[in-house]
Amino acid sequence: MSQKVIFVVTHGKDFKDRLETPLHLASLAAMLDTEVSVIYTMAAGLLLKKGVPENLIPKEGKQPYIETLRDAKEEGVKIYVCSAALEIFDLKRDDFIKEVDDIVGGMFIITESLEADTVFTF
Amino acid sequence: MSQKVIFVVTHGKDFKDRLETPLHLASLAAMLDTEVSVIYTMAAGLLLKKGVPENLIPKEGKQPYIETLRDAKEEGVKIYVCSAALEIFDLKRDDFIKEVDDIVGGMFIITESLEADTVFTF
Amino acid sequence: MSQKVIFVVTHGKDFKDRLETPLHLASLAAMLDTEVSVIYTMAAGLLLKKGVPENLIPKEGKQPYIETLRDAKEEGVKIYVCSAALEIFDLKRDDFIKEVDDIVGGMFIITESLEADTVFTF
Repeated sequence: MSQKVIFVVTHGKDFKDRLETPLHLASLAAMLDTEVSVIYTMAAGLLLKKGVPENLIPKEGKQPYIETLRDAKEEGVKIYVCSAALEIFDLKRDDFIKEVDDIVGGMFIITESLEADTVFTF
Repeated sequence: MSQKVIFVVTHGKDFKDRLETPLHLASLAAMLDTEVSVIYTMAAGLLLKKGVPENLIPKEGKQPYIETLRDAKEEGVKIYVCSAALEIFDLKRDDFIKEVDDIVGGMFIITESLEADTVFTF
Repeated sequence: MSQKVIFVVTHGKDFKDRLETPLHLASLAAMLDTEVSVIYTMAAGLLLKKGVPENLIPKEGKQPYIETLRDAKEEGVKIYVCSAALEIFDLKRDDFIKEVDDIVGGMFIITESLEADTVFTF
């Protein structure tokens, strides 16, 4: 059976030097025989609001965040937003970019993590 | 045998948008057949000093932090403070709220985590 | 077989109250029958640049960060820097202190973590 890796991303766009690494690591993990999920929670949920990742440049000369996200998805990485972020920021499903695979509850984070081989919380 | 989940909380009250999620997730985990511990270390230790959680409102309109903590305890979640926090902030056992189940050393964090099925570090 | 514990350190010197705990916990873990690695990534990579840890005092009256690092190494802890940090900060191997055991890629973080019993991300 393939291994499962979970990345829980908790920091938002105020932490520019934390943006790319989780997606880079997720892409690398997906190149192995693994099932990889990146779950955005807390302030990170806003990273996937329409209009945000398209215009978010982690560092001068780098591609927008949405491109790094799309690179990860091309490797097979699944992208989830925790529903708590919707409540905190008064958002609804339609406010998020189409690259989001699903909106998930906190119980999803728990059950997926219990099944996972490795959980990274960034 | 029941599964074991550890939450290591490392951020203090300056990070208001990080306060509730670990306790919400801990409560959810405790609803499954799991043994759940939340260990406060680094600046997070101060969150449990008498007078702090009673007056800490994560977001306008929300209940004080201590109520979220009590909700988690009602689900069976254990609450620990790492002794390093006592040293850093010159605190003693009596300075903490009674909801703290125990003061634990760093070795407790290691051995519990080695036994755990999942460790989240927030 | 001995157990394996990974610490992924992601915060830099702007977060002084986060500096010592990962190394203290790593030292404690190494006192058990475990193989312990501390991997510095994101802004944390800069902590190991020559000239930085020698002069970094986490808190008044404390020893410089490099001494805490050396204490951990004496317990057998391995110290790694993620190559992404080199790219982000335009550094090369020679810019790092000799206490760094190796520069590693993101795939090392993934494969080591998949093999590990516990992964802490601080």
